[in-house]
Amino acid sequence: MKTVKTNIQSILEQMTLDEKISQLLQLAAPFFNGSKESGQITGPMAEMGISDEDVRNSGSVLGAAGAKEVIHIQEAHLKENRLGIPLLFMADIIHGYKTIFPVPLAIGCSWNPELAQKSAEIAAKEAAVSGIHVTFAPMVDLVRDPRWGRVMESTGEDPFLNSVFARAFVRGFQGDDLTGDKEKVAACVKHFAAYGAAEGGRDYNTVDMSERQLREYYLPAYKAALDEGCQMVMTAFNILDGIPSTGNKKLMRDLLREEWGFDGVLISDWGAVKELIPHGTAANKAEAALKAITAGVDIEMMTSCYVHHLKELVEKGNLNTALIDEAVLRILRLKETLGLFDNPYRGANVKREKEVIRCESHLELSRELAVKSCVLLKNEGVLPLKPDQKIALIGPFAQSGDLLGAWSWLGSKEDTVQLYDGLKERAPHSHISVSQGCDIETGTEEQRNAAFKAAGEVDIIVLALGESSNMSGEASCRSDIRLPQVQLDLIAKLKELNKPMVTVLFNGRPLDLHGVADETDAVLEAWYPGSEGGRAVADLLYGEAVPTGRLSMSFPYSAGQIPVYYNQFNTGRPKDAPDAQEYYVSRYLDIPNEPLFPFGFGLSYTSFSYSDAKLSAAHMTLETPFKVSVCVTNTGEIPGEEIVQLYVRDITGEVVRPLKELKAFQHVFLQAGETKEVTFTLTEEQLRYHHADLAYKSDAGSFAVYVGPNSRDAVEMIFNLEK
Amino acid sequence: MKTVKTNIQSILEQMTLDEKISQLLQLAAPFFNGSKESGQITGPMAEMGISDEDVRNSGSVLGAAGAKEVIHIQEAHLKENRLGIPLLFMADIIHGYKTIFPVPLAIGCSWNPELAQKSAEIAAKEAAVSGIHVTFAPMVDLVRDPRWGRVMESTGEDPFLNSVFARAFVRGFQGDDLTGDKEKVAACVKHFAAYGAAEGGRDYNTVDMSERQLREYYLPAYKAALDEGCQMVMTAFNILDGIPSTGNKKLMRDLLREEWGFDGVLISDWGAVKELIPHGTAANKAEAALKAITAGVDIEMMTSCYVHHLKELVEKGNLNTALIDEAVLRILRLKETLGLFDNPYRGANVKREKEVIRCESHLELSRELAVKSCVLLKNEGVLPLKPDQKIALIGPFAQSGDLLGAWSWLGSKEDTVQLYDGLKERAPHSHISVSQGCDIETGTEEQRNAAFKAAGEVDIIVLALGESSNMSGEASCRSDIRLPQVQLDLIAKLKELNKPMVTVLFNGRPLDLHGVADETDAVLEAWYPGSEGGRAVADLLYGEAVPTGRLSMSFPYSAGQIPVYYNQFNTGRPKDAPDAQEYYVSRYLDIPNEPLFPFGFGLSYTSFSYSDAKLSAAHMTLETPFKVSVCVTNTGEIPGEEIVQLYVRDITGEVVRPLKELKAFQHVFLQAGETKEVTFTLTEEQLRYHHADLAYKSDAGSFAVYVGPNSRDAVEMIFNLEK
Repeated sequence: MKTVKTNIQSILEQMTLDEKISQLLQLAAPFFNGSKESGQITGPMAEMGISDEDVRNSGSVLGAAGAKEVIHIQEAHLKENRLGIPLLFMADIIHGYKTIFPVPLAIGCSWNPELAQKSAEIAAKEAAVSGIHVTFAPMVDLVRDPRWGRVMESTGEDPFLNSVFARAFVRGFQGDDLTGDKEKVAACVKHFAAYGAAEGGRDYNTVDMSERQLREYYLPAYKAALDEGCQMVMTAFNILDGIPSTGNKKLMRDLLREEWGFDGVLISDWGAVKELIPHGTAANKAEAALKAITAGVDIEMMTSCYVHHLKELVEKGNLNTALIDEAVLRILRLKETLGLFDNPYRGANVKREKEVIRCESHLELSRELAVKSCVLLKNEGVLPLKPDQKIALIGPFAQSGDLLGAWSWLGSKEDTVQLYDGLKERAPHSHISVSQGCDIETGTEEQRNAAFKAAGEVDIIVLALGESSNMSGEASCRSDIRLPQVQLDLIAKLKELNKPMVTVLFNGRPLDLHGVADETDAVLEAWYPGSEGGRAVADLLYGEAVPTGRLSMSFPYSAGQIPVYYNQFNTGRPKDAPDAQEYYVSRYLDIPNEPLFPFGFGLSYTSFSYSDAKLSAAHMTLETPFKVSVCVTNTGEIPGEEIVQLYVRDITGEVVRPLKELKAFQHVFLQAGETKEVTFTLTEEQLRYHHADLAYKSDAGSFAVYVGPNSRDAVEMIFNLEK
Repeated sequence: MKTVKTNIQSILEQMTLDEKISQLLQLAAPFFNGSKESGQITGPMAEMGISDEDVRNSGSVLGAAGAKEVIHIQEAHLKENRLGIPLLFMADIIHGYKTIFPVPLAIGCSWNPELAQKSAEIAAKEAAVSGIHVTFAPMVDLVRDPRWGRVMESTGEDPFLNSVFARAFVRGFQGDDLTGDKEKVAACVKHFAAYGAAEGGRDYNTVDMSERQLREYYLPAYKAALDEGCQMVMTAFNILDGIPSTGNKKLMRDLLREEWGFDGVLISDWGAVKELIPHGTAANKAEAALKAITAGVDIEMMTSCYVHHLKELVEKGNLNTALIDEAVLRILRLKETLGLFDNPYRGANVKREKEVIRCESHLELSRELAVKSCVLLKNEGVLPLKPDQKIALIGPFAQSGDLLGAWSWLGSKEDTVQLYDGLKERAPHSHISVSQGCDIETGTEEQRNAAFKAAGEVDIIVLALGESSNMSGEASCRSDIRLPQVQLDLIAKLKELNKPMVTVLFNGRPLDLHGVADETDAVLEAWYPGSEGGRAVADLLYGEAVPTGRLSMSFPYSAGQIPVYYNQFNTGRPKDAPDAQEYYVSRYLDIPNEPLFPFGFGLSYTSFSYSDAKLSAAHMTLETPFKVSVCVTNTGEIPGEEIVQLYVRDITGEVVRPLKELKAFQHVFLQAGETKEVTFTLTEEQLRYHHADLAYKSDAGSFAVYVGPNSRDAVEMIFNLEK
């Protein structure tokens, strides 16, 4: 290590100031000779005034993919770059490269970090052999507002669950030998910080919260990713405490770098350095550059504030070159960690591309994860389907490849298994008619009548409804979170037939399911299930697989209830308190306080009962392990898996504490009739929180612990923490 | 003053600890012999375990009213109280005592602090002669969420406008000689702090914000009230930085008392001390009492934590009696300020009650303020009505006395002028039919058909629609902010007649006006206009008065857009920037970013044009007065009043600054065709804001200033601040 360190130090010493500054520049693939633009453009890509020399000296590339292209760019670059510093290739590999997995929100609903890790391993492998070194993932922003389009990219509303997944994704992307294993990629956790709290659920909008809220709920998942060794961090587009993240010294240099000790690369989001100008905290590009580098942003993505202004800032004495040097050094160190000085092409390998991309085992894992990600929200005895039932499959998603969701730029809708095909494959001898009924947002009488006719001839109707994938994702926010009216009308029309109806939903956010959940007999939330979506959903519909997914984000009663999340505070006038008044309590006049479907909720084709919940002692002490156990019985007719959830409440704190906080969960597989005892060990560490002075510690005193199938239906037990 | 001080000091010295503690207790009128309960009960009023001795020694009374009753209670009290310390009588006189004025949100829309002050003077006079010493007003909580029921009690979303009204109300209630003028009452500003930011617009719910947000937007109006000499402060029900306001030492002792120097009485809201327990920051009543007194809460309203536990806290050495002494002293000082030691009955006077309550001049002012508070949102040439038009007045508010709004407990619906009566009085010879059409939330075919028939026989339909007054106010929150469906259906039905339709709205919050503003030809937002409501609205409908009201709170496009407010930040990706991308901007896919009606908006029966906007200099310096002027012309046919608004934007700050901030406004009355120049003086002080370190100061640099008729349509000019 020491000699290597000397190497990058010696490279740094040989670099001119211009070369150093250009090393901080990240450009999209089209800027490099011979490559073609293929990335999602998500920011200002107008005239940047970039010179050939800037490109020659730039440090990294965004959105190039494919071994041949990457090798070509790298070769050309090494010929032209004076010191032979290889480029870093970065890209948005969010939920798969070409084997597309369910969207992260769906993965969150699997509560299955092992499978999440495997999905990241596969994504890393496919990306790495295609020449990519760094993925801009995981996105671990805590989300409470389903209007926001990027909730599909998060694993949900819970800091603990998000942290579990953050770690799993980082492990999957990076493995345990990032330098040696060329088929891994470096991970870049994003968006630091609290991008998920955009006001009104409108993307890029203002974020405001107390430091307490930030530290207690929003920061843990980023920290978890870093604890797992995540190599990079990306800034968020939003402000925090009045200052855009990308120029926020307190957040980046004081907290991320000094307090947390992060010494890896910090990259701006697309165009975010220059966006300090519209934010109104920089008067011009020079000031934007100064604020970003001062905050500790190493790489400027796709704007030219650094490359055009850092030098003049140095020359005018406004900027110490030490800040530039440390940024360059961090970038060089990442290149070294990735072994690029030894092998600048790293995993890029045309032969391996053919072997691994969309190979059978990858698609199999995608299907498995999709099965585990779907959440059965309602089932009035109509699922699973029986092979002898005549089925009418109806809806805009009946024969659609739009099952990948946003942020799957290299995924192919054409290669995606559609639901109709999945059903036919699963039940080749069954009568399954198919009709569209309507498009996503529009429809004709003719379409609806054809569907109505087809539905008249069958035993059961399976509706495949949802949002097109561009109705969620970046900049795709909806104020109305219902299904488009035409689809609700389709349900209402088919309802006239008074036949059993199953709804399968493909969407990127929790929806207001009035008109759906109340009108149809079963609802399977399939999210965007990925490459094998049609097969995975068919597995579930026909009972080849039993649903195990549990919501990782609450489904609000309606948009007027936003935000609703399970780990809320009690307030001083809780509605359901035994001594609550009739009128003067915290509630709405017109809707319940509770979401339509709570965090942690999901049904199975079998049923489970909980009994004998008990604690190993009435008091937890710092010395003795404290155990919480419960017996879970499969009370149904078929084998099934339950996700047993453990929540804690600190009944009295120095500051208010949530009614419930997820602290642990376990998957338990049970044969019909089988009972297993599930035991959790709870520690004092899990009872800590940020006190009035932000000190992170626990309090002696009373706690409630809950075990159960979701955040709503759980048995309460009380214990004392003794210190 | 010195001798008086010695008096209360000497009283304090004579008091036993029990007597001191009971002095901190506030009980509702029913606790006192011979009185009858008449207040609105808004908290836990169960068994309190209050002894006769507690009552005998208690310091204040809540909700007693009427000179006879008050004199009776005070007399009895003085006989029983060992040291003869008179009771303080407090009550919720929010927008009038028996002469009811428009709800505060409506008053906010008058942009008329002079009339607001007069309304408070009248309220004070009626209350004072009825024996009341303190009113729990003004409520100055900044509000951005129309779901919250208490927005009707605030003057709106703007810190500056709220501050202007806060001062006006305090001046009106207290006058300039509170001790000498027995027909004034002490004011109590509430709810400290930031109660208006209840999450999800659900009353009593969690509040979370940065200290920056708190200081920049939420605190100024409370501070303005105190700067005006407001005698008391009431705590808020909500948490702030994780700690309930009522036990929040940082907020109360550090900020309110030490930083701001407030030495008056701090009272809990109803039951709020005990509510520290459900909030989860006190394990029991003793801890709640300790936290509240430590935070600096002097009076505990309607719970018994102090009276049952302060003594044991002292005895156990957990509480220094100095805290109790200072609380008692503050209460005694207020009694002294109100002259109660000289005349414990103060203004209570049965004869004066008869003279002043609901006297002609009071009702006249109520009518005038109501006229000024209504906001004309739309008018496609149908208003004002003409006396020769045949009119069908239709709707649940056509003949309703429910025009007072919440928090008007002594107002009489029976004595309130209904709209139909107001119209008949204004146009006694006109044909005006009246029908209900539907109730507020329900309706019959019969009702609707009768209205439809009546409407068929006239020239123009006037709809009187809205929310019943218990659909807003405390604990009255709605997730759906549209008119109830039955009223929208009524509009749709009447629309079939294709006749001109005018909608008059009576409601307590900004509504989503889809189905109303787009379906009818004119919309007059009348809020709850108070005792003379029917007359005031008739004055406007018939053009006897010309509308001048301007919204003090944005009307959202829909509930899915909440929160929407004019003084928002630009974001890094503003939708309307000249260089904005097509897709990746801050917006919703399905609705505009803009509210349906913006802050400051309101129409007149005439029209105004703006010209020759200019600055006195391109640069503002600290020495020279800086002037902004504009010529306003009445371009219509009739005289009218315009409210010229001045907004400022700091283009680049250390922290992000709002796109616009209201800094000044002027009413200008213009004859038809007349032009006047309106000149504002702008000072450096108005350009200050809280910097990164919360220092309050201005920056040299570029500013935009806007003058115009509302927050949307205003001419921009640029200037530089030089320092």
